[in-house]
Amino acid sequence: MAKEQKKIILTGDRPTGPLHLGHYIGSLKNRVKLQNEYEQYIIIADLQALTDNAENPEKVQKNVIELGLDYLSVGIDPKVSTIFIQSLIPALSELTMYYLNLVTVAQLERNPTVKDEMRQKGFGNRVPAGFFIYPISQVADITAFKANLVPVGADQVPMIEQTNEVVRAFNRIYKTNVLIETAALVSDVPRLSGLDGKAKMSKSLENCIYLSDTPDVVKEKVLRMYTDPGHVHVKDPGKIEGNVVFEYLDAFDLEKKKVAELKENYQRGGLGDIKAKEYLFEVLEDLLAPIREKRKEFAKDPAQIMKIIKKGTAKANEKASQTLKEVKEAMGLVY
Amino acid sequence: MAKEQKKIILTGDRPTGPLHLGHYIGSLKNRVKLQNEYEQYIIIADLQALTDNAENPEKVQKNVIELGLDYLSVGIDPKVSTIFIQSLIPALSELTMYYLNLVTVAQLERNPTVKDEMRQKGFGNRVPAGFFIYPISQVADITAFKANLVPVGADQVPMIEQTNEVVRAFNRIYKTNVLIETAALVSDVPRLSGLDGKAKMSKSLENCIYLSDTPDVVKEKVLRMYTDPGHVHVKDPGKIEGNVVFEYLDAFDLEKKKVAELKENYQRGGLGDIKAKEYLFEVLEDLLAPIREKRKEFAKDPAQIMKIIKKGTAKANEKASQTLKEVKEAMGLVY
Repeated sequence: MAKEQKKIILTGDRPTGPLHLGHYIGSLKNRVKLQNEYEQYIIIADLQALTDNAENPEKVQKNVIELGLDYLSVGIDPKVSTIFIQSLIPALSELTMYYLNLVTVAQLERNPTVKDEMRQKGFGNRVPAGFFIYPISQVADITAFKANLVPVGADQVPMIEQTNEVVRAFNRIYKTNVLIETAALVSDVPRLSGLDGKAKMSKSLENCIYLSDTPDVVKEKVLRMYTDPGHVHVKDPGKIEGNVVFEYLDAFDLEKKKVAELKENYQRGGLGDIKAKEYLFEVLEDLLAPIREKRKEFAKDPAQIMKIIKKGTAKANEKASQTLKEVKEAMGLVY
Repeated sequence: MAKEQKKIILTGDRPTGPLHLGHYIGSLKNRVKLQNEYEQYIIIADLQALTDNAENPEKVQKNVIELGLDYLSVGIDPKVSTIFIQSLIPALSELTMYYLNLVTVAQLERNPTVKDEMRQKGFGNRVPAGFFIYPISQVADITAFKANLVPVGADQVPMIEQTNEVVRAFNRIYKTNVLIETAALVSDVPRLSGLDGKAKMSKSLENCIYLSDTPDVVKEKVLRMYTDPGHVHVKDPGKIEGNVVFEYLDAFDLEKKKVAELKENYQRGGLGDIKAKEYLFEVLEDLLAPIREKRKEFAKDPAQIMKIIKKGTAKANEKASQTLKEVKEAMGLVY
């Protein structure tokens, strides 16, 4: 009996900094869950990171191994998930070159995700050309591994649509079916707020709890978390809407009943912020302590981490090279 | 005594059609002359050809070997010149990706050569993204081989300037000197007119004499060449300005004295168009017959041509990979 082919997922991160609780709840947790059900490729997108970090390659380089450490520490299993470094796979750059001929400059300009990002990054009229075309580099990443699914936030859906436009154009023009359309696996987890409650958790806003933070740092961060500014005395009734402590309890505490009780208590008056925060700290530590322990173990032997990533890269390279070969054959570009 | 390092030239063509007399006089002749003095890399730019031929990869593929045949037939010596296929050198795509981060979209939009080309090609608002960024792909071609000189027409000088902007940006940002600035070797040969005398010789205008044309075809083309429409009878005085026959005699006849006599005779009245054209045909045949003979010989064994090109490609690949390695090291992007 033929073994059923597992569906393929492509996911990954730009190596621009350590991963935080927002990443954990938004994607890492899911990757760990999905890695046995799917064939999972996890890209450490250093080329993509460079598109807006050209002046800081050392930051990108340094964070590649940090990302590897984060992945392994949260439970990504390199025996079933393939972790790889983008810049070590020449086929990804080569595919990008072929795909760039199948989209117009106007189509790139219309991509709403990139438009938003360009505004956020404040490039003005100094948009790096590499950044402008990075959606097509992503098409290469996705199609190289023939990914059926790409986990994304809702704001990233246009990227997947653009990918499929390229896939359809390629298959139509070259009368082939070597490229396959992919689907967005849209996360239904709302994005986690930062400590200040003002915006989503984001490295650039310095409102993060990192997976690699020490307990002291986590405690300090939890203690300065935004709650209800009107909740001055323990006995005062407090609001839980917009209260980051309760948002985090909802996200991370598995004992839903306990959280419901705490909320009631807080709203009625009688639960102090400090107490609630100390409880949240414990909840977070239940998650973070084992991750931290594993990280410490792995960090003892960085060469071993790199060996794992290199092994994944070799596997990914083989797969991407095979796709490139099929792409060139479909184009008749064989010598 | 250390052997003096030869300077490096990068030159080449898009494989979109056979080469014609305009190519010969504008560049091929010079390549044959320069190949012993310089280390010459000749790129068969199939990737670049695809940027505005994405729907015709078979045309591009087919013309790669035709181009190789043309090169060898005019006297390019593969023992001293390195002929190679662009798409077989992954480092060229990879370098392009790194360089794209060092130029802005606005800088690409300002490139006057590309602006002109986009207008000529009538893309309207459907400019392929690959075409838009091809100057940066050219930067990769030039820098990969550390070319000191790039033979170009005057209209291509902005391309060389853009190359050097990228080179300087790279060296400045990454505090290195691995990339070297290149210089335009601007041809002082005016571009050859087409048979109709209305525009320069160009495949798309169907006004060319190809190096691979048979004698019959060459003769037929010479006979319908544009001369002086006012020169009706042999005895009438004729004009040589704008007269394509005399332009070609100036370009191809080595006996300058003889050409001067013919011109005088024509202007005075007494030299018929047919006679002048028959003479030009002989002059062209002195050039084309040996090229045609060599082409016929080479064409007997296309596998041998491909072997020569593949050998050049292997050498070029080694050189480009070495440059990519140095580029990554300069960026600290080493794992």
